[in-house]
Amino acid sequence: MLAAAREIETLFGEDAVSYDEDDIENHGFSDWSSVNSSTRAVAVVYPRSTDDVVKVAEICHKLRVPIVPYGAGSSVEGNFSSPYSGIVIDVTHMDNILSFHPEDMDVVVQPGVNWVDLNKEMEKEKLFLPLDPSPTATVGGMVSTNCSGTNAFRYGTMKDWVTNVTVVLADGQVIKTRQRPRKTSAGYNLTSLFVGAEGTLGIITEITLKLAVVPSETSVAVVTFPTIFSAASAASRIIRSGIQLAAMELMDEVQMQIINRHGSEQVRKRNWDETPSLFLKFSSHSKEGIQSDICRVKELIERESTKFVFAKTKDDEAKLWAARKEALWTMTSIKPEGHAIWSTDVAVPISQLAEIIELSKKDGERLGVFTSIVGHVGDGNFHEALMYDPKDPAQSDAVKDAVRMMITRALEMEGTVSGEHAIGMGKKQYLMNELGPGTIELMKQLKTAVDPRWIMNPGKIFDLPNGSVIRT
Amino acid sequence: MLAAAREIETLFGEDAVSYDEDDIENHGFSDWSSVNSSTRAVAVVYPRSTDDVVKVAEICHKLRVPIVPYGAGSSVEGNFSSPYSGIVIDVTHMDNILSFHPEDMDVVVQPGVNWVDLNKEMEKEKLFLPLDPSPTATVGGMVSTNCSGTNAFRYGTMKDWVTNVTVVLADGQVIKTRQRPRKTSAGYNLTSLFVGAEGTLGIITEITLKLAVVPSETSVAVVTFPTIFSAASAASRIIRSGIQLAAMELMDEVQMQIINRHGSEQVRKRNWDETPSLFLKFSSHSKEGIQSDICRVKELIERESTKFVFAKTKDDEAKLWAARKEALWTMTSIKPEGHAIWSTDVAVPISQLAEIIELSKKDGERLGVFTSIVGHVGDGNFHEALMYDPKDPAQSDAVKDAVRMMITRALEMEGTVSGEHAIGMGKKQYLMNELGPGTIELMKQLKTAVDPRWIMNPGKIFDLPNGSVIRT
Repeated sequence: MLAAAREIETLFGEDAVSYDEDDIENHGFSDWSSVNSSTRAVAVVYPRSTDDVVKVAEICHKLRVPIVPYGAGSSVEGNFSSPYSGIVIDVTHMDNILSFHPEDMDVVVQPGVNWVDLNKEMEKEKLFLPLDPSPTATVGGMVSTNCSGTNAFRYGTMKDWVTNVTVVLADGQVIKTRQRPRKTSAGYNLTSLFVGAEGTLGIITEITLKLAVVPSETSVAVVTFPTIFSAASAASRIIRSGIQLAAMELMDEVQMQIINRHGSEQVRKRNWDETPSLFLKFSSHSKEGIQSDICRVKELIERESTKFVFAKTKDDEAKLWAARKEALWTMTSIKPEGHAIWSTDVAVPISQLAEIIELSKKDGERLGVFTSIVGHVGDGNFHEALMYDPKDPAQSDAVKDAVRMMITRALEMEGTVSGEHAIGMGKKQYLMNELGPGTIELMKQLKTAVDPRWIMNPGKIFDLPNGSVIRT
Repeated sequence: MLAAAREIETLFGEDAVSYDEDDIENHGFSDWSSVNSSTRAVAVVYPRSTDDVVKVAEICHKLRVPIVPYGAGSSVEGNFSSPYSGIVIDVTHMDNILSFHPEDMDVVVQPGVNWVDLNKEMEKEKLFLPLDPSPTATVGGMVSTNCSGTNAFRYGTMKDWVTNVTVVLADGQVIKTRQRPRKTSAGYNLTSLFVGAEGTLGIITEITLKLAVVPSETSVAVVTFPTIFSAASAASRIIRSGIQLAAMELMDEVQMQIINRHGSEQVRKRNWDETPSLFLKFSSHSKEGIQSDICRVKELIERESTKFVFAKTKDDEAKLWAARKEALWTMTSIKPEGHAIWSTDVAVPISQLAEIIELSKKDGERLGVFTSIVGHVGDGNFHEALMYDPKDPAQSDAVKDAVRMMITRALEMEGTVSGEHAIGMGKKQYLMNELGPGTIELMKQLKTAVDPRWIMNPGKIFDLPNGSVIRT
């Protein structure tokens, strides 16, 4: 492996390869990850172009050295761990917008582009990429985990916004999955195969992204409910009405308490009701559209809700939504020194969401684990954040049990073990439970066809086949 | 091959296998196809369940006999031809709705379900599958060609409405790509791999479809323009405004003439302006929403348009849209005995649409081919229908030239050779031009991994590898 790193260094120069221990550690371990491997890569490589990646792949392929792609490091399921060591490819320097076609509503970028920066550029033309994962996330990682976030209810997930990808395959060959039409039915949908493949089929070096029109009018409402069930029932009535909200988020009473006590000053002073709450984002191209949507929604859910507050000004709107935005941050801020947060998600058919949330909360209580819940309720997807002391074996076991039970229930409800965080190392066994050995075997056959030496991000999504020859 | 058919007959009984010449002909030849192979299958098999398909696959796999899936026979690129003979699997009897979950907004169906029938059932719960290909089409074929139609501008294409598929692989193994969550980022997106694969990777025997809410309010406007360019420029302004129309269709002056002269009585009597026209469909959940959209659109495109007519009643709405609906039918009705229509499509980045339409129309004129154009302008996708006498070599050549030029231009504009009809046999060479040998090779590697004997609908999308052993 070091031989591979040295060969890359010879080609690109010293600056392009790092052997620094801290650097390697930062590229192989994350506090945010549900799992971390104990192994680390031997070096981190910083390519600047598709050609650079080709050279790295050729060397690693020749020497059978694992390649682990790295974007912003914000994934949570060990997606960028190095369980078989190898070489990390960090795409930090591949952060250019290559071409922007506002009239076609698309943009071609390198994988290291941060989505917040991208949207600042796109705003000039009133366009945006309508995903909202971690603000640090870069497009390559967003593609590779099929990310989403609060906007998915209206705009779908990453797979819906990728027109084509350019990929360096394991042996260094470069392919492009499509040209640039927004619509096509020509041949296999390779784009969708690479989206969500977590770098196990190749390194994505260019992405053409579709863009959406920034809505000219937006507003926010916060609605409180006596129970999770009544909130979910209200959400269901909104969904079935056909009114197209921009987002529909659920926070449970625990998360509302945390917001009241530990939110930013402007958020705290509102003194939120500590009951399950729906955060609704409205968007439209006209003021009348927004007003009509807010009135209709209010009428629709009057029966279940206890309070309906909506933003009358832009300032109001930002302040209301801030409570939702601060959810993760407040949870982190109350974490005692040495404690950890296990943050994970599942998705189920929407009619099942209230039940799985209630049951998961009860599990948390019974097991004595501090648990808060935030849900993308319009997608049947929710996040559970569990706080625990990883040095306490009883607490660690309790958290693992709680997560296992949540996932097992999601599967019993015909759901999925990962709504928007992919599989990484953390959910491999669960994925097997979700899809069964036949479907996993088919995935592995595809993997073998594309990467016969299994050097691309090995040990993610599924285990290596028995008897694989990979350097460790 | 006959041995395979006999073995299937022994298992299922005589009624399940047809050797009737007419039956085989109807399953191997289509007037609507741009190409037809001269070879025919040896038999047509009519399975009734996934298990039946498994048995057929096992026998055909053992004996290395090609399997060609058949839905409604409405595809146009030779997608269900039998260039290597084999056995046709007709899914006519697999036409059950297996389970309907209105609260989850999804439905599980067999591949032989017709989408119009399905939507009649779904209407009870104010839900629908928002695709509109040929009214005869069945879900299996719609999935396999990644179909779309006029609704795609708002609702996307078939790939966006499939939650999971159950597939019988070449060796008879059954896999299911997902459970039933609307959102997931768990493992490879096998669903999207099978959508649009034209039956070359396996036979789809069950499909879970997402459903949309039927909009409570709809309306239609027809807007005329002096040129295709001004129509496209108006369309572009609407798209960039963010106003979400249900459909945006373009008909050229030739198609408008045909409508005036050969449309149904109710359509003819309106006396349409014979200039490029946009047919706009509006939909909303409120009357105010529709009114506001119509007013905004009218304002936006006033500069380019010469006339703006919108429906004031439901009856009006149906009559206006009828002209768009009758487009294909009127073209067929004026076809002289013995003449044929070559109907094909491409898609380009939306800014290029007006130019490619204008150039394609000029090609048609220059080559003396009667050509009409209907465009899904919101998707950068258009259809050209060319009328000719297939027995006249000069006319046949002219049509082939016109199609070739249209496709070549689409590729030069970074478009695709097929917007919504897939590749079949008709566009194999063009797909190679679109994607290049490396990408096609990757598709073939995937094909080989899943179907090593290449028995699944061979000769579609791409050619067989050199030296393939397949019975002919």
